[in-house]
Amino acid sequence: MIHTAESCGKAKMAIRDTLDVVGGKWKLVLISVLRSGKKGFNELSREAGISPRILSKELKELEMNALVNREVCNTKPITVQYELTQYSETLSEVLLAMEKWGYEHRQRVVTGG
Amino acid sequence: MIHTAESCGKAKMAIRDTLDVVGGKWKLVLISVLRSGKKGFNELSREAGISPRILSKELKELEMNALVNREVCNTKPITVQYELTQYSETLSEVLLAMEKWGYEHRQRVVTGG
Repeated sequence: MIHTAESCGKAKMAIRDTLDVVGGKWKLVLISVLRSGKKGFNELSREAGISPRILSKELKELEMNALVNREVCNTKPITVQYELTQYSETLSEVLLAMEKWGYEHRQRVVTGG
Repeated sequence: MIHTAESCGKAKMAIRDTLDVVGGKWKLVLISVLRSGKKGFNELSREAGISPRILSKELKELEMNALVNREVCNTKPITVQYELTQYSETLSEVLLAMEKWGYEHRQRVVTGG
């Protein structure tokens, strides 16, 4: 029993840790958008449908957690591109599980099941 | 190329669908807390560390999506218990992936890796 409570607590903490890093409305959406390649700020804002103010905050947090890399390009005018880091690939299982669930949930809702 | 763009779009939509249902700060935490068995409102509020106002809103949304069942017990005074539905078990892969990631991320942060 003690073991179960302990392992339950660990599981809850781990899920919370994940949600602290990639929870919220936008982070996993941004990661899934960036999977098709590096993007500029405006492009990202448009594709993900996020306001610039929120996008800027979310990108900073993703950068802090080593999931997104901000690259300043030596162009005139200077441009900035965002790309996924190698570390972000560790999230692929989470994203795949969410993709599968979302797909099946939609089928269920559509068929009224 | 068209195929890739299309399947990317589908993946993004599915991830968004999942986030619409279980995204945000609390829903997956609540589901992970309820995995240890049915709980009353106050117990749930305490265990998950959620204010009653937010908890009430989150539970209603989980109920609407058939993930949580609200049971009114014929006691004096009437008590209400919340439990996971069978359908919520379809989320186990998502939760497991998040649990694994959270655990590994913490190791990484702790070891400074």
